[in-house]
Amino acid sequence: MSYQVKKILISSDHAGFSLKTFLIKELTKSGFEPVDLGCDSAEKSVDYPDYAKALCTKLKDEFGILICGSGIGISIAANRFPHIRAALCYNSKSAKLARAHNDANVLCLGARVVASKQALMIAKAFLQGKFEGGRHATRVCKINS
Amino acid sequence: MSYQVKKILISSDHAGFSLKTFLIKELTKSGFEPVDLGCDSAEKSVDYPDYAKALCTKLKDEFGILICGSGIGISIAANRFPHIRAALCYNSKSAKLARAHNDANVLCLGARVVASKQALMIAKAFLQGKFEGGRHATRVCKINS
Repeated sequence: MSYQVKKILISSDHAGFSLKTFLIKELTKSGFEPVDLGCDSAEKSVDYPDYAKALCTKLKDEFGILICGSGIGISIAANRFPHIRAALCYNSKSAKLARAHNDANVLCLGARVVASKQALMIAKAFLQGKFEGGRHATRVCKINS
Repeated sequence: MSYQVKKILISSDHAGFSLKTFLIKELTKSGFEPVDLGCDSAEKSVDYPDYAKALCTKLKDEFGILICGSGIGISIAANRFPHIRAALCYNSKSAKLARAHNDANVLCLGARVVASKQALMIAKAFLQGKFEGGRHATRVCKINS
């Protein structure tokens, strides 16, 4: 298994803090370079749009991972940014489709709806996925039109 | 079970056409008034951003349902619109959270990743959900800030 992009921006609210910590550890073991953009605690309640913004305003050619309780709020907030295609994924199949068909550059996860090991499998499926282009490229272009 | 909003805008690409047809039939039986904004066939390949746009530019105080193959592309496209909070849901739990915490007004479904009966359960959970307000309202406001 090979990955083209090593650097990954990663951010979460308090509900996603533990899963973020786990993914940073495991993805580092697998040769990635996760950049932690917060939050810094599971105890202090924070607002997911702040952490979506922190990541989306920095993201250029890397991939990003965003985590909140359900993954829904942070995916809505991320997709407000025109250069972001944030995919909320619950399984590896949807993560592969997000890369192959939507050229997604941000993976969103719900820490309260997926287990840690499942989240890691989803992240790896996303990170090794490749965009198919063709008719899918036409559709991706239309997203911002 | 009571629903406050009866009118529902619904739209899909070709991959979601069959599920859209099923949901329109079943939701009508349950007393809703679905408004079908296309597409009109499972055979003719169309582009999901066109159907996200068709619904999002019409949606005001109603709920909306958007369907594509994975639900991912159409949820990205829908969340480009500032008045839309589109939640991609794979189960009833996430549908309830989408209403309770995110005040989502559009439900996104992936026709290739959820079965029809499951999709109907998700739609009903979404449509009967209520926004909790409070700290969640603060976060929802921040989404567009």
